[in-house]
Amino acid sequence: MRRFVIIGQTARADGDFRLDDLPGSSGRSDALLRCLRAAFLTSHGLRRNVEVYLILRGGGAAPRTLRVTSERVKFLRPDERSLALLVQKTLLAAPPALARDFVEIRPGLDLRQGDLELLLGELGSAPRYLLQEGAPDLRAALPPSDDGWFFMGDHLGLDTGSSARLLQLGCRPVAVGPLSLHAEDVVTLASNELDRAFARTDA
Amino acid sequence: MRRFVIIGQTARADGDFRLDDLPGSSGRSDALLRCLRAAFLTSHGLRRNVEVYLILRGGGAAPRTLRVTSERVKFLRPDERSLALLVQKTLLAAPPALARDFVEIRPGLDLRQGDLELLLGELGSAPRYLLQEGAPDLRAALPPSDDGWFFMGDHLGLDTGSSARLLQLGCRPVAVGPLSLHAEDVVTLASNELDRAFARTDA
Repeated sequence: MRRFVIIGQTARADGDFRLDDLPGSSGRSDALLRCLRAAFLTSHGLRRNVEVYLILRGGGAAPRTLRVTSERVKFLRPDERSLALLVQKTLLAAPPALARDFVEIRPGLDLRQGDLELLLGELGSAPRYLLQEGAPDLRAALPPSDDGWFFMGDHLGLDTGSSARLLQLGCRPVAVGPLSLHAEDVVTLASNELDRAFARTDA
Repeated sequence: MRRFVIIGQTARADGDFRLDDLPGSSGRSDALLRCLRAAFLTSHGLRRNVEVYLILRGGGAAPRTLRVTSERVKFLRPDERSLALLVQKTLLAAPPALARDFVEIRPGLDLRQGDLELLLGELGSAPRYLLQEGAPDLRAALPPSDDGWFFMGDHLGLDTGSSARLLQLGCRPVAVGPLSLHAEDVVTLASNELDRAFARTDA
Protein backbone atom coordinates (compact mmCIF):
# COMPACT_ATOMS: atom_id res chain seq x y z
CA MET A 1 0.00 0.00 0.00
CA ARG A 2 1.23 3.46 -0.99
CA ARG A 3 0.39 5.92 1.81
CA PHE A 4 0.73 9.68 1.91
CA VAL A 5 0.33 11.56 5.18
CA ILE A 6 -0.06 15.34 4.91
CA ILE A 7 -0.03 17.33 8.10
CA GLY A 8 -2.29 20.37 7.95
CA GLN A 9 -1.16 22.69 10.73
CA THR A 10 -4.23 24.90 10.45
CA ALA A 11 -6.62 22.83 8.28
CA ARG A 12 -10.07 22.93 9.87
CA ALA A 13 -11.23 19.59 11.25
CA ASP A 14 -14.86 20.68 11.70
CA GLY A 15 -15.85 21.41 8.09
CA ASP A 16 -16.72 24.97 9.03
CA PHE A 17 -15.43 26.69 5.91
CA ARG A 18 -16.79 28.41 2.83
CA LEU A 19 -16.44 26.86 -0.61
CA ASP A 20 -16.10 30.30 -2.17
CA ASP A 21 -13.15 31.18 0.05
CA LEU A 22 -11.29 28.00 0.81
CA PRO A 23 -7.83 29.50 1.38
CA GLY A 24 -9.23 32.17 3.70
CA SER A 25 -11.77 30.15 5.65
CA SER A 26 -10.54 26.55 5.80
CA GLY A 27 -7.10 27.03 7.35
CA ARG A 28 -5.60 26.38 3.93
CA SER A 29 -7.30 23.02 3.53
CA ASP A 30 -7.20 23.76 -0.20
CA ALA A 31 -3.54 22.70 -0.21
CA LEU A 32 -4.46 19.35 1.34
CA LEU A 33 -7.45 18.78 -0.93
CA ARG A 34 -5.31 19.15 -4.01
CA CYS A 35 -3.12 16.31 -2.71
CA LEU A 36 -6.10 13.96 -3.05
CA ARG A 37 -6.29 14.61 -6.78
CA ALA A 38 -2.55 14.15 -7.18
CA ALA A 39 -2.43 10.88 -5.25
CA PHE A 40 -5.48 9.14 -6.69
CA LEU A 41 -6.50 10.47 -10.08
CA THR A 42 -4.97 9.68 -13.44
CA SER A 43 -6.40 10.80 -16.79
CA HIS A 44 -8.70 7.86 -17.10
CA GLY A 45 -9.15 6.49 -13.64
CA LEU A 46 -8.02 6.00 -10.13
CA ARG A 47 -4.75 4.54 -8.86
CA ARG A 48 -5.25 1.41 -6.75
CA ASN A 49 -3.63 0.55 -3.41
CA VAL A 50 -3.25 4.14 -2.32
CA GLU A 51 -4.25 5.75 0.97
CA VAL A 52 -4.04 9.42 1.89
CA TYR A 53 -4.15 10.59 5.49
CA LEU A 54 -4.93 14.25 6.11
CA ILE A 55 -4.05 15.35 9.63
CA LEU A 56 -6.39 18.23 10.45
CA ARG A 57 -5.04 20.38 13.25
CA GLY A 58 -7.20 23.46 12.92
CA GLY A 59 -10.64 24.48 14.20
CA GLY A 60 -12.75 23.35 17.13
CA ALA A 61 -12.89 19.60 16.55
CA ALA A 62 -9.12 19.22 16.00
CA PRO A 63 -7.13 17.14 15.90
CA ARG A 64 -8.81 14.74 13.54
CA THR A 65 -7.46 12.43 10.87
CA LEU A 66 -9.23 11.89 7.56
CA ARG A 67 -8.26 8.75 5.69
CA VAL A 68 -9.14 8.30 2.02
CA THR A 69 -8.76 4.80 0.53
CA SER A 70 -8.64 4.14 -3.21
CA GLU A 71 -10.49 0.83 -3.03
CA ARG A 72 -13.60 2.31 -1.46
CA VAL A 73 -13.68 5.97 -2.44
CA LYS A 74 -16.38 7.23 -4.80
CA PHE A 75 -17.20 10.57 -6.40
CA LEU A 76 -13.62 11.79 -6.40
CA ARG A 77 -13.37 14.57 -8.96
CA PRO A 78 -10.29 16.55 -9.94
CA ASP A 79 -11.55 20.07 -9.28
CA GLU A 80 -10.90 21.72 -5.96
CA ARG A 81 -14.47 22.74 -5.22
CA SER A 82 -15.81 19.20 -5.67
CA LEU A 83 -13.07 17.84 -3.44
CA ALA A 84 -13.82 20.50 -0.84
CA LEU A 85 -17.53 19.73 -0.91
CA LEU A 86 -16.91 16.01 -0.47
CA VAL A 87 -14.57 16.56 2.47
CA GLN A 88 -16.82 19.19 4.02
CA LYS A 89 -19.84 16.85 3.90
CA THR A 90 -17.74 14.16 5.52
CA LEU A 91 -16.55 16.43 8.32
CA LEU A 92 -20.00 17.87 8.98
CA ALA A 93 -21.67 14.45 9.00
CA ALA A 94 -19.32 13.07 11.64
CA PRO A 95 -20.71 12.60 15.15
CA PRO A 96 -19.38 15.26 17.56
CA ALA A 97 -18.06 12.59 19.89
CA LEU A 98 -15.80 10.85 17.45
CA ALA A 99 -13.77 7.84 18.59
CA ARG A 100 -10.11 7.08 18.11
CA ASP A 101 -11.00 4.30 15.67
CA PHE A 102 -11.73 5.22 12.06
CA VAL A 103 -15.39 5.37 11.08
CA GLU A 104 -16.42 5.42 7.43
CA ILE A 105 -18.54 8.54 6.97
CA ARG A 106 -18.76 8.56 3.18
CA PRO A 107 -17.59 5.78 0.84
CA GLY A 108 -13.83 5.53 1.26
CA LEU A 109 -13.62 8.54 3.58
CA ASP A 110 -12.92 7.51 7.16
CA LEU A 111 -12.59 9.90 10.04
CA ARG A 112 -11.32 9.68 13.58
CA GLN A 113 -10.29 11.82 16.50
CA GLY A 114 -6.53 11.93 16.85
CA ASP A 115 -3.32 13.50 15.65
CA LEU A 116 -0.17 12.23 14.00
CA GLU A 117 1.00 10.51 17.18
CA LEU A 118 -1.91 8.05 17.09
CA LEU A 119 -1.07 7.10 13.51
CA LEU A 120 2.58 6.62 14.37
CA GLY A 121 1.65 3.69 16.60
CA GLU A 122 0.12 1.90 13.62
CA LEU A 123 2.79 2.05 10.95
CA GLY A 124 3.75 -1.63 10.80
CA SER A 125 6.88 -2.64 8.92
CA ALA A 126 6.50 -0.72 5.64
CA PRO A 127 9.39 1.68 4.82
CA ARG A 128 8.91 5.22 6.14
CA TYR A 129 9.93 8.43 4.44
CA LEU A 130 9.92 12.06 5.44
CA LEU A 131 9.73 14.46 2.51
CA GLN A 132 12.10 17.26 3.34
CA GLU A 133 13.77 20.09 1.45
CA GLY A 134 17.47 19.50 0.85
CA ALA A 135 17.40 15.81 1.81
CA PRO A 136 18.90 13.04 -0.39
CA ASP A 137 17.04 12.22 -3.60
CA LEU A 138 14.05 9.86 -3.34
CA ARG A 139 15.16 8.39 -6.68
CA ALA A 140 18.15 6.83 -4.95
CA ALA A 141 16.14 5.58 -1.98
CA LEU A 142 13.02 3.95 -3.41
CA PRO A 143 11.35 1.20 -1.38
CA PRO A 144 11.73 -2.40 -2.58
CA SER A 145 8.05 -2.58 -3.46
CA ASP A 146 5.11 -0.22 -3.82
CA ASP A 147 4.61 -0.19 -0.09
CA GLY A 148 5.53 2.69 2.15
CA TRP A 149 4.63 5.71 4.23
CA PHE A 150 5.38 9.19 2.90
CA PHE A 151 5.03 12.00 5.44
CA MET A 152 5.00 15.67 4.52
CA GLY A 153 4.00 19.10 5.75
CA ASP A 154 1.64 21.65 4.26
CA HIS A 155 2.33 25.23 3.19
CA LEU A 156 3.73 25.97 6.66
CA GLY A 157 6.12 23.04 6.55
CA LEU A 158 6.42 20.51 9.32
CA ASP A 159 6.60 21.69 12.91
CA THR A 160 9.83 20.76 14.68
CA GLY A 161 8.07 18.38 17.06
CA SER A 162 6.47 16.27 14.31
CA SER A 163 9.63 16.31 12.29
CA ALA A 164 11.81 15.17 15.19
CA ARG A 165 9.34 12.44 16.12
CA LEU A 166 9.25 11.11 12.53
CA LEU A 167 13.03 10.99 12.37
CA GLN A 168 13.15 9.28 15.76
CA LEU A 169 10.80 6.61 14.39
CA GLY A 170 13.19 5.87 11.54
CA CYS A 171 11.67 7.89 8.74
CA ARG A 172 14.20 8.38 5.98
CA PRO A 173 14.49 12.02 4.87
CA VAL A 174 14.17 12.35 1.11
CA ALA A 175 13.60 15.16 -1.40
CA VAL A 176 12.08 15.25 -4.86
CA GLY A 177 14.18 17.97 -6.43
CA PRO A 178 16.07 21.20 -5.79
CA LEU A 179 13.05 23.41 -4.98
CA SER A 180 10.64 23.60 -2.11
CA LEU A 181 7.32 22.66 -3.70
CA HIS A 182 3.65 22.56 -2.78
CA ALA A 183 2.55 19.34 -1.09
CA GLU A 184 0.50 18.35 -4.13
CA ASP A 185 3.56 18.60 -6.39
CA VAL A 186 5.48 16.46 -3.92
CA VAL A 187 2.67 13.87 -4.07
CA THR A 188 2.70 13.99 -7.89
CA LEU A 189 6.47 13.54 -8.03
CA ALA A 190 6.65 10.75 -5.45
CA SER A 191 3.71 8.97 -7.12
CA ASN A 192 5.49 9.20 -10.46
CA GLU A 193 8.67 7.65 -9.03
CA LEU A 194 6.64 4.78 -7.63
CA ASP A 195 4.60 4.43 -10.85
CA ARG A 196 7.85 4.25 -12.82
CA ALA A 197 9.53 1.80 -10.46
CA PHE A 198 6.60 -0.54 -10.06
CA ALA A 199 5.14 -0.18 -13.54
CA ARG A 200 1.68 0.80 -12.53
CA THR A 201 -0.87 0.86 -15.25
CA ASP A 202 -4.24 2.56 -15.15
CA ALA A 203 -6.98 0.88 -13.18
CA MET B 1 12.61 30.41 -21.61
CA ARG B 2 10.59 27.41 -20.45
CA ARG B 3 7.26 27.39 -22.28
CA PHE B 4 4.23 25.16 -21.77
CA VAL B 5 1.41 25.14 -24.30
CA ILE B 6 -1.83 23.45 -23.21
CA ILE B 7 -4.53 23.00 -25.78
CA GLY B 8 -8.01 23.28 -24.30
CA GLN B 9 -10.36 21.67 -26.80
CA THR B 10 -13.47 23.02 -25.10
CA ALA B 11 -12.08 25.67 -22.71
CA ARG B 12 -14.22 28.81 -23.00
CA ALA B 13 -12.41 31.77 -24.52
CA ASP B 14 -15.08 34.30 -23.52
CA GLY B 15 -14.93 34.06 -19.74
CA ASP B 16 -18.59 33.11 -19.61
CA PHE B 17 -18.42 30.54 -16.83
CA ARG B 18 -19.44 30.18 -13.22
CA LEU B 19 -16.85 30.05 -10.46
CA ASP B 20 -19.05 27.68 -8.47
CA ASP B 21 -19.22 25.19 -11.34
CA LEU B 22 -15.99 25.44 -13.26
CA PRO B 23 -15.90 21.90 -14.64
CA GLY B 24 -19.51 22.09 -15.83
CA SER B 25 -19.60 25.65 -17.16
CA SER B 26 -16.10 26.52 -18.40
CA GLY B 27 -15.48 23.70 -20.88
CA ARG B 28 -13.14 22.14 -18.35
CA SER B 29 -10.97 25.22 -18.05
CA ASP B 30 -10.31 24.04 -14.49
CA ALA B 31 -7.82 21.54 -15.91
CA LEU B 32 -5.93 24.35 -17.66
CA LEU B 33 -6.03 26.69 -14.69
CA ARG B 34 -4.38 24.12 -12.49
CA CYS B 35 -1.48 24.04 -14.96
CA LEU B 36 -0.71 27.67 -14.09
CA ARG B 37 -0.10 26.77 -10.46
CA ALA B 38 2.05 23.81 -11.44
CA ALA B 39 4.21 25.79 -13.88
CA PHE B 40 4.77 28.94 -11.85
CA LEU B 41 4.35 28.46 -8.14
CA THR B 42 6.79 26.96 -5.69
CA SER B 43 6.34 26.92 -1.91
CA HIS B 44 7.85 30.30 -1.43
CA GLY B 45 7.65 32.06 -4.74
CA LEU B 46 7.41 32.03 -8.46
CA ARG B 47 9.66 30.32 -10.99
CA ARG B 48 11.36 32.75 -13.36
CA ASN B 49 11.69 32.51 -17.16
CA VAL B 50 8.48 30.53 -17.60
CA GLU B 51 5.62 31.17 -19.99
CA VAL B 52 2.36 29.27 -20.22
CA TYR B 53 0.13 29.44 -23.29
CA LEU B 54 -3.47 28.31 -22.90
CA ILE B 55 -5.16 27.68 -26.24
CA LEU B 56 -8.87 28.29 -25.66
CA ARG B 57 -10.98 26.59 -28.30
CA GLY B 58 -14.42 26.72 -26.68
CA GLY B 59 -17.21 29.31 -26.51
CA GLY B 60 -18.17 32.19 -28.76
CA ALA B 61 -14.91 34.16 -28.87
CA ALA B 62 -12.75 31.12 -29.68
CA PRO B 63 -10.08 30.52 -30.67
CA ARG B 64 -8.06 32.70 -28.36
CA THR B 65 -4.64 32.27 -26.80
CA LEU B 66 -3.89 33.39 -23.26
CA ARG B 67 -0.21 33.86 -22.44
CA VAL B 68 0.99 34.11 -18.85
CA THR B 69 4.56 35.33 -18.27
CA SER B 70 6.39 34.85 -14.99
CA GLU B 71 8.27 38.14 -15.16
CA ARG B 72 5.14 40.27 -15.30
CA VAL B 73 2.38 38.25 -13.67
CA LYS B 74 0.93 39.39 -10.36
CA PHE B 75 -1.69 38.05 -7.96
CA LEU B 76 -1.12 34.43 -8.93
CA ARG B 77 -2.50 32.29 -6.12
CA PRO B 78 -2.46 28.50 -5.86
CA ASP B 79 -6.16 27.84 -5.37
CA GLU B 80 -8.34 27.09 -8.34
CA ARG B 81 -11.02 29.67 -7.65
CA SER B 82 -8.51 32.53 -7.45
CA LEU B 83 -6.91 31.40 -10.69
CA ALA B 84 -10.32 31.14 -12.35
CA LEU B 85 -11.30 34.61 -11.18
CA LEU B 86 -8.06 36.11 -12.50
CA VAL B 87 -8.45 34.44 -15.89
CA GLN B 88 -12.16 35.24 -16.08
CA LYS B 89 -11.51 38.93 -15.40
CA THR B 90 -8.86 38.91 -18.12
CA LEU B 91 -11.16 37.27 -20.67
CA LEU B 92 -14.11 39.52 -19.85
CA ALA B 93 -12.00 42.69 -19.97
CA ALA B 94 -10.69 41.97 -23.46
CA PRO B 95 -12.08 44.04 -26.32
CA PRO B 96 -14.51 42.02 -28.48
CA ALA B 97 -12.46 42.75 -31.59
CA LEU B 98 -9.20 41.30 -30.42
CA ALA B 99 -6.17 41.38 -32.72
CA ARG B 100 -3.75 38.65 -33.64
CA ASP B 101 -1.02 40.36 -31.61
CA PHE B 102 -0.92 39.80 -27.88
CA VAL B 103 -2.35 42.58 -25.71
CA GLU B 104 -1.65 42.72 -21.99
CA ILE B 105 -5.02 42.76 -20.27
CA ARG B 106 -3.88 42.21 -16.68
CA PRO B 107 -0.27 42.24 -15.43
CA GLY B 108 1.46 39.32 -17.13
CA LEU B 109 -1.72 38.04 -18.77
CA ASP B 110 -1.74 38.67 -22.50
CA LEU B 111 -4.54 37.69 -24.83
CA ARG B 112 -4.95 37.44 -28.56
CA GLN B 113 -7.27 36.02 -31.17
CA GLY B 114 -5.79 32.91 -32.74
CA ASP B 115 -5.30 29.19 -32.38
CA LEU B 116 -2.29 26.90 -32.15
CA GLU B 117 -1.39 27.44 -35.82
CA LEU B 118 -0.62 31.11 -35.24
CA LEU B 119 1.74 30.23 -32.40
CA LEU B 120 3.47 27.59 -34.49
CA GLY B 121 4.76 30.33 -36.79
CA GLU B 122 6.58 31.95 -33.87
CA LEU B 123 8.53 29.13 -32.28
CA GLY B 124 12.05 30.22 -33.15
CA SER B 125 14.88 27.77 -32.65
CA ALA B 126 14.22 26.47 -29.11
CA PRO B 127 13.76 22.66 -28.86
CA ARG B 128 10.16 21.47 -29.25
CA TYR B 129 8.50 18.62 -27.41
CA LEU B 130 5.15 16.94 -27.63
CA LEU B 131 4.03 15.29 -24.41
CA GLN B 132 2.46 12.03 -25.42
CA GLU B 133 1.48 8.80 -23.68
CA GLY B 134 3.80 5.91 -24.48
CA ALA B 135 6.54 8.06 -26.04
CA PRO B 136 10.23 7.83 -25.03
CA ASP B 137 11.17 9.19 -21.61
CA LEU B 138 11.72 12.95 -21.30
CA ARG B 139 14.54 12.14 -18.87
CA ALA B 140 16.59 10.80 -21.78
CA ALA B 141 15.75 13.70 -24.08
CA LEU B 142 16.21 16.86 -22.04
CA PRO B 143 17.07 20.08 -23.88
CA PRO B 144 20.67 21.39 -23.59
CA SER B 145 19.46 24.38 -21.58
CA ASP B 146 16.31 25.53 -19.81
CA ASP B 147 14.84 26.66 -23.09
CA GLY B 148 12.11 24.84 -24.93
CA TRP B 149 8.50 24.42 -25.97
CA PHE B 150 6.36 21.74 -24.33
CA PHE B 151 3.03 21.07 -26.02
CA MET B 152 0.27 18.99 -24.46
CA GLY B 153 -3.44 18.28 -24.61
CA ASP B 154 -6.11 18.63 -21.96
CA HIS B 155 -8.45 15.98 -20.50
CA LEU B 156 -9.58 15.11 -24.04
CA GLY B 157 -6.05 14.62 -25.29
CA LEU B 158 -4.73 16.24 -28.44
CA ASP B 159 -6.82 16.14 -31.59
CA THR B 160 -5.20 14.28 -34.49
CA GLY B 161 -4.79 17.45 -36.54
CA SER B 162 -2.82 19.34 -33.87
CA SER B 163 -0.78 16.29 -33.04
CA ALA B 164 0.16 15.64 -36.70
CA ARG B 165 1.05 19.29 -37.22
CA LEU B 166 3.30 19.36 -34.14
CA LEU B 167 5.13 16.24 -35.27
CA GLN B 168 5.47 17.69 -38.76
CA LEU B 169 7.12 20.75 -37.23
CA GLY B 170 9.73 18.61 -35.54
CA CYS B 171 8.30 18.28 -32.06
CA ARG B 172 9.94 15.39 -30.27
CA PRO B 173 7.40 13.04 -28.64
CA VAL B 174 8.21 12.41 -24.99
CA ALA B 175 6.46 10.94 -21.95
CA VAL B 176 6.85 11.51 -18.22
CA GLY B 177 6.04 8.03 -16.94
CA PRO B 178 3.98 4.92 -17.55
CA LEU B 179 0.53 6.43 -16.87
CA SER B 180 -1.64 8.90 -18.69
CA LEU B 181 -1.81 11.84 -16.30
CA HIS B 182 -3.66 15.13 -15.95
CA ALA B 183 -2.01 18.04 -17.75
CA GLU B 184 -1.10 19.68 -14.45
CA ASP B 185 0.79 16.57 -13.33
CA VAL B 186 2.62 16.57 -16.66
CA VAL B 187 3.58 20.20 -16.08
CA THR B 188 4.76 19.39 -12.55
CA LEU B 189 6.84 16.45 -13.76
CA ALA B 190 8.40 18.26 -16.73
CA SER B 191 9.13 21.31 -14.55
CA ASN B 192 10.83 19.08 -12.03
CA GLU B 193 13.07 17.49 -14.69
CA LEU B 194 14.10 20.95 -15.85
CA ASP B 195 14.55 22.21 -12.27
CA ARG B 196 16.78 19.22 -11.57
CA ALA B 197 18.79 19.56 -14.79
CA PHE B 198 19.32 23.28 -14.61
CA ALA B 199 19.55 23.64 -10.85
CA ARG B 200 16.84 26.19 -10.41
CA THR B 201 16.53 27.76 -7.05
CA ASP B 202 13.59 29.67 -5.69
CA ALA B 203 13.10 33.20 -6.94
